[in-house]
Amino acid sequence: MSLWEQYSAVRSHSVQICDKLQKEDYVVQPVEEVSPPKWHLGHTTWFFETFILVPHAVAYQLFNADYNYVFNSYYESVGARVIRTDRGNLSRPTVDDIFHYRAYVDEAMEKFLLCGVSKEVEELIILGLNHEQQHQELLWYDIKYILGHNPLFPAYDADNIENGLTLTAEGWADFSEGVYEVGYQGNTFHFDNELGRHKVYIQNFSIATRLVSNAEYLEFIRAGGYLDFSVWHAQGWDWVCEKHITAPLYWYEINGEWHRYSLSGLEALKMNSPVSNISYYEAAAYAQWKGMRLPTEFEWEVASSLFEWGKLWEWTESAYLPYPGFSKAAGALGEYNGKFMVNQKVLRGASVATPLNHSRNTYRNFFHPDMRWMFSGIRLAK
Amino acid sequence: MSLWEQYSAVRSHSVQICDKLQKEDYVVQPVEEVSPPKWHLGHTTWFFETFILVPHAVAYQLFNADYNYVFNSYYESVGARVIRTDRGNLSRPTVDDIFHYRAYVDEAMEKFLLCGVSKEVEELIILGLNHEQQHQELLWYDIKYILGHNPLFPAYDADNIENGLTLTAEGWADFSEGVYEVGYQGNTFHFDNELGRHKVYIQNFSIATRLVSNAEYLEFIRAGGYLDFSVWHAQGWDWVCEKHITAPLYWYEINGEWHRYSLSGLEALKMNSPVSNISYYEAAAYAQWKGMRLPTEFEWEVASSLFEWGKLWEWTESAYLPYPGFSKAAGALGEYNGKFMVNQKVLRGASVATPLNHSRNTYRNFFHPDMRWMFSGIRLAK
Amino acid sequence: MSLWEQYSAVRSHSVQICDKLQKEDYVVQPVEEVSPPKWHLGHTTWFFETFILVPHAVAYQLFNADYNYVFNSYYESVGARVIRTDRGNLSRPTVDDIFHYRAYVDEAMEKFLLCGVSKEVEELIILGLNHEQQHQELLWYDIKYILGHNPLFPAYDADNIENGLTLTAEGWADFSEGVYEVGYQGNTFHFDNELGRHKVYIQNFSIATRLVSNAEYLEFIRAGGYLDFSVWHAQGWDWVCEKHITAPLYWYEINGEWHRYSLSGLEALKMNSPVSNISYYEAAAYAQWKGMRLPTEFEWEVASSLFEWGKLWEWTESAYLPYPGFSKAAGALGEYNGKFMVNQKVLRGASVATPLNHSRNTYRNFFHPDMRWMFSGIRLAK
Amino acid sequence: MSLWEQYSAVRSHSVQICDKLQKEDYVVQPVEEVSPPKWHLGHTTWFFETFILVPHAVAYQLFNADYNYVFNSYYESVGARVIRTDRGNLSRPTVDDIFHYRAYVDEAMEKFLLCGVSKEVEELIILGLNHEQQHQELLWYDIKYILGHNPLFPAYDADNIENGLTLTAEGWADFSEGVYEVGYQGNTFHFDNELGRHKVYIQNFSIATRLVSNAEYLEFIRAGGYLDFSVWHAQGWDWVCEKHITAPLYWYEINGEWHRYSLSGLEALKMNSPVSNISYYEAAAYAQWKGMRLPTEFEWEVASSLFEWGKLWEWTESAYLPYPGFSKAAGALGEYNGKFMVNQKVLRGASVATPLNHSRNTYRNFFHPDMRWMFSGIRLAK
Ligand SMILES: [Fe+3]
Ligand SMILES: [Fe+3]
Ligand SMILES: [Fe+3]
Ligand SMILES: [Fe+3]
Repeated sequence: MSLWEQYSAVRSHSVQICDKLQKEDYVVQPVEEVSPPKWHLGHTTWFFETFILVPHAVAYQLFNADYNYVFNSYYESVGARVIRTDRGNLSRPTVDDIFHYRAYVDEAMEKFLLCGVSKEVEELIILGLNHEQQHQELLWYDIKYILGHNPLFPAYDADNIENGLTLTAEGWADFSEGVYEVGYQGNTFHFDNELGRHKVYIQNFSIATRLVSNAEYLEFIRAGGYLDFSVWHAQGWDWVCEKHITAPLYWYEINGEWHRYSLSGLEALKMNSPVSNISYYEAAAYAQWKGMRLPTEFEWEVASSLFEWGKLWEWTESAYLPYPGFSKAAGALGEYNGKFMVNQKVLRGASVATPLNHSRNTYRNFFHPDMRWMFSGIRLAK
Repeated sequence: MSLWEQYSAVRSHSVQICDKLQKEDYVVQPVEEVSPPKWHLGHTTWFFETFILVPHAVAYQLFNADYNYVFNSYYESVGARVIRTDRGNLSRPTVDDIFHYRAYVDEAMEKFLLCGVSKEVEELIILGLNHEQQHQELLWYDIKYILGHNPLFPAYDADNIENGLTLTAEGWADFSEGVYEVGYQGNTFHFDNELGRHKVYIQNFSIATRLVSNAEYLEFIRAGGYLDFSVWHAQGWDWVCEKHITAPLYWYEINGEWHRYSLSGLEALKMNSPVSNISYYEAAAYAQWKGMRLPTEFEWEVASSLFEWGKLWEWTESAYLPYPGFSKAAGALGEYNGKFMVNQKVLRGASVATPLNHSRNTYRNFFHPDMRWMFSGIRLAK
Repeated sequence: MSLWEQYSAVRSHSVQICDKLQKEDYVVQPVEEVSPPKWHLGHTTWFFETFILVPHAVAYQLFNADYNYVFNSYYESVGARVIRTDRGNLSRPTVDDIFHYRAYVDEAMEKFLLCGVSKEVEELIILGLNHEQQHQELLWYDIKYILGHNPLFPAYDADNIENGLTLTAEGWADFSEGVYEVGYQGNTFHFDNELGRHKVYIQNFSIATRLVSNAEYLEFIRAGGYLDFSVWHAQGWDWVCEKHITAPLYWYEINGEWHRYSLSGLEALKMNSPVSNISYYEAAAYAQWKGMRLPTEFEWEVASSLFEWGKLWEWTESAYLPYPGFSKAAGALGEYNGKFMVNQKVLRGASVATPLNHSRNTYRNFFHPDMRWMFSGIRLAK
Repeated sequence: MSLWEQYSAVRSHSVQICDKLQKEDYVVQPVEEVSPPKWHLGHTTWFFETFILVPHAVAYQLFNADYNYVFNSYYESVGARVIRTDRGNLSRPTVDDIFHYRAYVDEAMEKFLLCGVSKEVEELIILGLNHEQQHQELLWYDIKYILGHNPLFPAYDADNIENGLTLTAEGWADFSEGVYEVGYQGNTFHFDNELGRHKVYIQNFSIATRLVSNAEYLEFIRAGGYLDFSVWHAQGWDWVCEKHITAPLYWYEINGEWHRYSLSGLEALKMNSPVSNISYYEAAAYAQWKGMRLPTEFEWEVASSLFEWGKLWEWTESAYLPYPGFSKAAGALGEYNGKFMVNQKVLRGASVATPLNHSRNTYRNFFHPDMRWMFSGIRLAK
């Protein structure tokens, strides 16, 4: 695929994800971590405008100079930051405005790519596409949250990514202690946080070849797991008490029957699906209750060829920390990963919401331990 | 005008106010006191469905049983209350859904009115229309807030109600102490809180025949009014400090020149317009700084025939309290006024946003003393 | 009594109130509205040092220049304000330090008074004594709160002011509509907020000659008063829900029996005592539930000679507003009353905690409607 | 030393730390993480009463049954938890009460120890003594915070532990990559979190043999370190902005000269002392600004024999996570360490506040990354 074809494919996929939305669904921000879909569409476009077209395309005219203020996110070195919680208060630019913005930038990118680009610029574009793919995954989380927290429980569409949430057979894979190698090595796209390939010492361990199912998790609930502080981290227990948590996100007990909101709408809980939309606190509490633990990210990476993965992001016990020799890139793009390396847990794998060609067994995803609006699940280790 | 014609006129006016909006503008709620325009359109419709059609129209079918949950506001006796801050998180029902809801209810109302209604039901309908007119005024406040707090500062339309914000000549009207009568008396529509006509004793007073202008208020700012706690109430001063208040809402100092966002967009401050979007705290501090005071609501009412009013709601020194003999109506409609009679200040008059035929010199509007997103101004007394 | 004798009597009474305390009881501030007793003792002393000795006593040396920062309260014009919530964090000055400070200032005052003072200074001293008497009343509230919110429920002393909380016989006093006079008139001490004597027009009313009893209030609880929003103001209902209010302050239901913490310790609820430690919201809800209302402050004042008062401060329906012609005094003392005239309700009468010679039937006490750590009760009107 | 002698020595050391305090200093809690000294004295006593005397001493009578409620902290399995922020609101039990409690329990312990105890009970007692030593260290932090946040800046005593805050010569120690062993191994006291001895793979690294000095840290401030988001973690930058952080805790710039509050009082900043009372965010930002990093806890442990340590706890880059094979002990004591293993950073070494015989190079201390009221410093690595 040519660079333009790659660009074009990724860009149109973002639009396609939003295809089933009403205009109003693009606008709202029910909680801080959810961004309005129209913001994602604008922000990913802003990336190409700001980092490719403005510095590299001759005579490029900004679509709208104020958009930098509206669509910048955490890139503090490119101007004032929009306070996240404000995103849901902005009715303008409208959805139509943003689609015009996308078309304008895409046209400029097409023209720009016609003449060929330097290796350095190509790498930046590839980064921009991977950035957009990350936001595609967030789009799924956010769309589900917006529809799933509406009292009318509207469905996204009967045909949706959650239909892929199936499970394989149970089992364990065993490993012996020793020096292993982890980290990215190769010539394809990767993030700075998964570099470089390095040795780690791992003790004997076993890792489950299957994710924990809804049925298994329901046992934990029925055994009083959410009422027993002894299986929780102290901060996890505070979270359970303050937020009155009694089940995974999107689970509703209605007249004694457990239901779950999926992108198909509210439906009876599917017992043979992997439990999803789980916080680290819940994953760790479940593991503690089972007398087991979560794998480290290194155990996971070493073992990953022996089990199916990619349905749900899998919480690990590892904190999100720099690999040996890691250093932040200079400039705005340097903010990409390093600045988040505190108070977050690593998740490994990928999910049904992850775009094709955007997963690797060295990929290090990360979230705060109380987050659960993403497609996250549990794999046990011991 | 027949009842249907009245109904029809009021109902279509709500839609007309929103005519200039983009669909996205209907959805957002930037602060708690602002409701999304689509909510107003649904809520006023819900009023007729709930209090007229459901109890009185034979065989009426609810448009959507879940709408009661979505569009109920403070009427606690008609079911669970939606938390106000949640209104801006709901993308559904969509704007189109709500217009269908309005059409459905309007059609049912037309059919229902065809056969004639009892006096009691007619009064309820008139109440519903006045309720909708109150929300029409709120629509203006909320639309201005939504557009005026967007970093792109979009205009509503060059032709808008704020063009009417002009001033008459200065002057004072003087009154001697004695027993006066205040309160509503008559046969037209009125709210329970302005009943009944009763005697009050008023001391000698003088009241300005003109509102305070932007130019005059600017003097207060330039004299350091926002920096001098001695002219503020203690709670007003806390409000100034915590919220970093330095000017009326919608005022922006840009390169040393004062601007103001009006529904026409951002423009140079009009010195000869009345100062608007002012809190009680600011109005009282200004009066204190001038060595004067605000009128009581009784002074205002007694004097109202001697000056022009109706451009801006005018803060009074009076707290919002029950008139002698006031008692709450029974049932859901009893919540209309009485339950708000604490911690609020009375405003008298009307504003450029007030619908025609919805103002009286006995009308008692009320807001918390820190609110200023409404069209509020200052008239001095001494 | 000479001025020194008056001074001496008031000053020693403050110390006497604290006589039963442990040193630790002087230090804590369990909630914002409660001040540590040692702060009251220092602050009232600071008043005499700052407003009498520093400006008027020749060659007076400050006890400690930093004390102005520590003991100033709301007098913003005399230096930086201590944030109220911080008072409970200050272990120094110690209790002993503060008693030395009191002795030092008292000695200076004695010397200063020996030579006679001008009328103006005498008035300031009298104001200082009334100020200290107000803090004596607060001392009782705060001491009760500190001991009554300790899990060990320590008693203050069996012999205490709450023993005086008895009730007279039921009855009603009736008044006809007309012009009445209210406000202070005379030559003794009074606050600026009760000036000047002026006419008001009052409608026919009846007022209870007795306060509401614990037994009567218990009926309200048993009838579900705290669960029925329809008898509450909207803000009152929010307060009930957010704070989980189910009974007056200091009431505890233990094994089905109602108890109350008094200064004698935790004891069975005394049915024939007046209900105390009640917020305005509760008082108004109770009255609404009884189909009655609270009196206005003017009704109360006009009727006050016909009933016993002085056991508990009595909530009125009146908001705390300036009387006609009120204006703030200049300088720091001008802050005394006027700046609080918003969002507060007037209470009339006095309480068992009010010092002797500190009550008048024109006295206007005021609190926010959710406050209830003071000795407050309910008198009905209709 | 006999067990009783050990017990006696540790117990009297706690009292000795508080010897210089005024009674009021024992009571206050200026921020959530600071506990009132009297609480520490009670809580450490409660440990012996609850875990030794109640289950093991024949016919032991509780000193006061309510003390369990007052002095329990995070041990959720032993009854209701006191909300931390409430500790500073409790004036009772008084300081004298708590000293009586200590004497009562010590006497019972002496009697109990006379007859000899099982190995298991001895271990529990040793744990209790180490627990008390941990609280001794906290006592120093809390006393410094209480005195150092008082506007009078009272000194603790001229002769105090901070006099030991000196520095050795600069230098670097270098290590080659390979498999190393870390973790506790031996027969003396240790916590569960430092078990078991295990292999780790470490890459080439260099570690400073000296802590960062105040002079060096001042360069960071003068270079605008607190104003440049690019050297901070995203959450660190939020912390800086929200809390308006511009220097380490206890630093004050007065008339252009930097001062620091030490236990000797407010004094000129000592340039040749190690920078102390630093958060992880600040330590990491400083390292980033220097183009270096913090060591991992494993690098630190491996290198620890080559440098002086023990003046200040040293932030590491390592998150506080379970060692391989870690599992929580059963029962209340199982809560000791494992439940805190999320969102915290490991600190290694010890400080001038650490009791004698309470430091090991395998000791894993941990705090949230924004905490800085403890004696914490910076050692660089690269
Ligand atoms: Fe992004
Ligand atoms: Fe309404
Ligand atoms: Fe005072
Ligand atoms: Fe402890």
